[in-house]
Amino acid sequence: MRNIIDELTSALGPAKIAVDPATLAAYAVDQAPVLDYQLPQAVVRAESVADVQATVRACAARGVALVARGAGTGVSGGAHASEGCVVLSLERMNRILDLNPDDETAVVEPGVINADLNAAAADHGLMYAPDPASFKMSTIGGNVATNAGGLRCAKYGVTRDSVLALDVVLADGTLIHTGHQTFKGVAGYDLTGLFVGSEGTLGIVVGVTVRLKYLPREVHTIAAFYPDFRSAAAGVLAVGKARVQPAIMELLDGGSLAQLDDIHGSDLAARGASLLLIQTDGFGAAAEAAAIRPVLAAGGAVVTMEANAEAEQLVELRRNSRGTEVDDEYRVGEDVAVPRSRLVDYVAELEAIAAEHRVQLKVVAHAGDGNLHPTFWIDRVDNAVDADAMARLGAALDKSIAVALAMGGTITGEHGIGQYKLRWLGLEQKEPVRELQRRIKELFDPAGILNPGKAI
Amino acid sequence: MRNIIDELTSALGPAKIAVDPATLAAYAVDQAPVLDYQLPQAVVRAESVADVQATVRACAARGVALVARGAGTGVSGGAHASEGCVVLSLERMNRILDLNPDDETAVVEPGVINADLNAAAADHGLMYAPDPASFKMSTIGGNVATNAGGLRCAKYGVTRDSVLALDVVLADGTLIHTGHQTFKGVAGYDLTGLFVGSEGTLGIVVGVTVRLKYLPREVHTIAAFYPDFRSAAAGVLAVGKARVQPAIMELLDGGSLAQLDDIHGSDLAARGASLLLIQTDGFGAAAEAAAIRPVLAAGGAVVTMEANAEAEQLVELRRNSRGTEVDDEYRVGEDVAVPRSRLVDYVAELEAIAAEHRVQLKVVAHAGDGNLHPTFWIDRVDNAVDADAMARLGAALDKSIAVALAMGGTITGEHGIGQYKLRWLGLEQKEPVRELQRRIKELFDPAGILNPGKAI
Ligand SMILES: Cc1cc2nc3c(=O)[nH]c(=O)nc-3n(C[C@H](O)[C@H](O)[C@H](O)COP(=O)(O)OP(=O)(O)OC[C@H]3O[C@@H](n4cnc5c(N)ncnc54)[C@H](O)[C@@H]3O)c2cc1C
Ligand SMILES: Cc1cc2nc3c(=O)[nH]c(=O)nc-3n(C[C@H](O)[C@H](O)[C@H](O)COP(=O)(O)OP(=O)(O)OC[C@H]3O[C@@H](n4cnc5c(N)ncnc54)[C@H](O)[C@@H]3O)c2cc1C
Repeated sequence: MRNIIDELTSALGPAKIAVDPATLAAYAVDQAPVLDYQLPQAVVRAESVADVQATVRACAARGVALVARGAGTGVSGGAHASEGCVVLSLERMNRILDLNPDDETAVVEPGVINADLNAAAADHGLMYAPDPASFKMSTIGGNVATNAGGLRCAKYGVTRDSVLALDVVLADGTLIHTGHQTFKGVAGYDLTGLFVGSEGTLGIVVGVTVRLKYLPREVHTIAAFYPDFRSAAAGVLAVGKARVQPAIMELLDGGSLAQLDDIHGSDLAARGASLLLIQTDGFGAAAEAAAIRPVLAAGGAVVTMEANAEAEQLVELRRNSRGTEVDDEYRVGEDVAVPRSRLVDYVAELEAIAAEHRVQLKVVAHAGDGNLHPTFWIDRVDNAVDADAMARLGAALDKSIAVALAMGGTITGEHGIGQYKLRWLGLEQKEPVRELQRRIKELFDPAGILNPGKAI
Repeated sequence: MRNIIDELTSALGPAKIAVDPATLAAYAVDQAPVLDYQLPQAVVRAESVADVQATVRACAARGVALVARGAGTGVSGGAHASEGCVVLSLERMNRILDLNPDDETAVVEPGVINADLNAAAADHGLMYAPDPASFKMSTIGGNVATNAGGLRCAKYGVTRDSVLALDVVLADGTLIHTGHQTFKGVAGYDLTGLFVGSEGTLGIVVGVTVRLKYLPREVHTIAAFYPDFRSAAAGVLAVGKARVQPAIMELLDGGSLAQLDDIHGSDLAARGASLLLIQTDGFGAAAEAAAIRPVLAAGGAVVTMEANAEAEQLVELRRNSRGTEVDDEYRVGEDVAVPRSRLVDYVAELEAIAAEHRVQLKVVAHAGDGNLHPTFWIDRVDNAVDADAMARLGAALDKSIAVALAMGGTITGEHGIGQYKLRWLGLEQKEPVRELQRRIKELFDPAGILNPGKAI
């Protein structure tokens, strides 16, 4: 049998296969900390469903691992190369195949960038609702494979809620179509939902049919600055108690504000120790904003009367609040979610954990969903850290996970398990549930070639 | 080995087991046409998870088929008894175990009636969004097992979108917990989604954690009477083109109006040949209604300026528009969905099919979702019909399915495949997809005891 590189080259043509060291290194990791650095044998940049099928078949025939990759913006290591693997990039399959403004649906290739789909939809008064903060970079295929959340998911739901149908290449190269082109459909088991969030371990997503929602005509943005982080978290609950559903409810702590100021020259940290950013939308946007403002003020917030443009600029900053640093083993971003009522308690625990273990902490949260992104890190001196600091970081991370679980939370609200969070999965899910998942994996991918060592 | 009835009686106590003919007959069928009438051997009315586990284990040990049953309001035959089966009724497991107004979640036993959960949630300004027209009778467990839709799903999503976590008894009696208590969570594969809509073939749902939504403070209802059915369907598309999202958008044809008049003494049919009933809700309800009214009028509707109470009464009537007849082999309700843009075409085709095959037709539709419930029937003379009429009915049904599929539709938007729609499933789903589902079934239920011959 030819080796995998020769086979791929002959099947797909040399222009789609890269084996040069620079490309291999560029496609070796996503934006997550790396536990086990591996270079792929080759990178395939597929341009068609047939390319994907040929790649899968070549790997299947040789038992070579295959790691699907969108934009590589994942932060759980789902797209990290595994040993001896081929990385299959879907980035060139970036066509919007159909956008039907009357059906309010679109059919896209997996490599379409989230923001590009939204731009195309906006021409028709429509939007693709799930908007991860990475929406200008990440792909719809990657969003589907991670069941990405985002800012406006509090009101509009996560990726799963917008996906109607999928085209998937299975581990043996078979192409299947799941789901329905209609808004609703319940024929048979929900295979579409099973592939959503499966992080490239059950099949390669090569086509996505999505439902579009109406682009709101009106948007109101409220910036509420609080004297401390816990009061800001309490503000989220107060809005809930008022039974008003904002489209966006984002929480930023002091560390996040300081970082935004650093990067953008803003003066957020001077205005408060924590910011709750709320956006209402639709026909009721103004009335909702009017109902929310006094609730926030009553909780101790300074509620700005920004012009909408100015407040929207803050949302734009928030979308970039991960900053420019890529997580690594010294700097780990988490993705826990807790039941909403525990938000304030959890935020207090995070602050206590950081202090106790003497590690740095900043937090942003999709607070409407109870989904928090604490980042814990330790400072490097001369690009090195001592073992004690590493141990403290590890302990802080473990503690933050344990506390979230004890509150009825989850270890991952939207980023996925990938490679990095595998060590915590057993704390959340009991053995019979994990075993069921292993058996589903075995059913779809008996040889275990699809993204081994990830997700489950 | 003891026989199944002795075993169940000894394990659960006699008060939970019924074998008398009246009970067996009452639990033999749901509200769908019956293709293969069977009496169960016994009916178990479980009162606890342990009862369910004991029942499943007893059946598993003897290879006895087990048919789960909520309220038996299903209209696809999912709860019809299969040969020699035990029917496991969950109706006595009807406690709301937890309703947390701050978390905006509830945990319920499967037998809780949808309307009861909604009443309890309303005390806290909350609602359980999925509202099948059967909400006053059907159970949350049955809603989950069928992934029920409903009136306000156009805006708020189907059952799947409100279910966060499940407790499920598997085919070997093991109890598992899937999902998360938080609004978002992506750890591992979406087993919750796999059980939702699986019609009792993969496991018995014994606990459901749901997300609640905010009860809208304001509701506006618009009744638009049209001179014909097609213009009314066009009204649905016109509202979509205006990019306004109502909570409810229900379409009734002349036959449905006449039937409501018969039952309730109303004068709907005199007011128009078709009714489009639209409800907007939330802070934008009035503005949305104001945007919708001229759009409907421009399409030829007489838009009523009803007092809200009067228009809401129409919605209440619509919730009962199935009337009192139970479907049988002479009267079959369908549940197709088509892409929204095809609504008018499909409605025209339905009328043509009924005329061509000389069968009766009435249609109600959750039109916002493109989900239609045509009912075709033939009149009985002296409680008998001739073979020719039956053949015409069958041909009309088959044609209406074929046309929906050709338009990119589905054979079931919300009712499920059950037993009755199995004959059409192969037209919608290709063999590799069906085979995957069979293998998933085999994985969860190797002996095939859970609701055999249904759903897939
Ligand atoms: C600045 C920043 C902000 C972010 N904000 C958010 C946020 O708000 N919400 C959120 O949910 N995430 C967020 N993320 C994480 C990340 O962007 C998402 O997980 C995103 O969905 C990944 O898309 P991608 O195209 O980059 O996929 P990749 O990182 O390339 O891959 C992600 C996973 O999907 C698999 N995969 C990719 N494409 C396919 C395919 N076609 N078929 C099968 N499997 C495939 C990969 O194997 C991998 O397991 C953020 C990341 C960054 C860097
Ligand atoms: C007047 C009327 C109006 C209706 N309107 C709608 C509507 O608007 N939208 C809609 O979607 N449906 C509608 N239906 C259909 C029906 O009400 C729904 O399918 C409902 O979800 C069934 O609930 P049930 O409790 O009656 O379940 P059943 O009919 O008892 O069972 C339905 C299916 O679920 C399985 N099942 C039940 N409980 C469990 C459990 N705990 N674990 C595992 N499996 C279980 C059964 O085996 C069966 O396959 C309507 C029916 C009627 C009669």
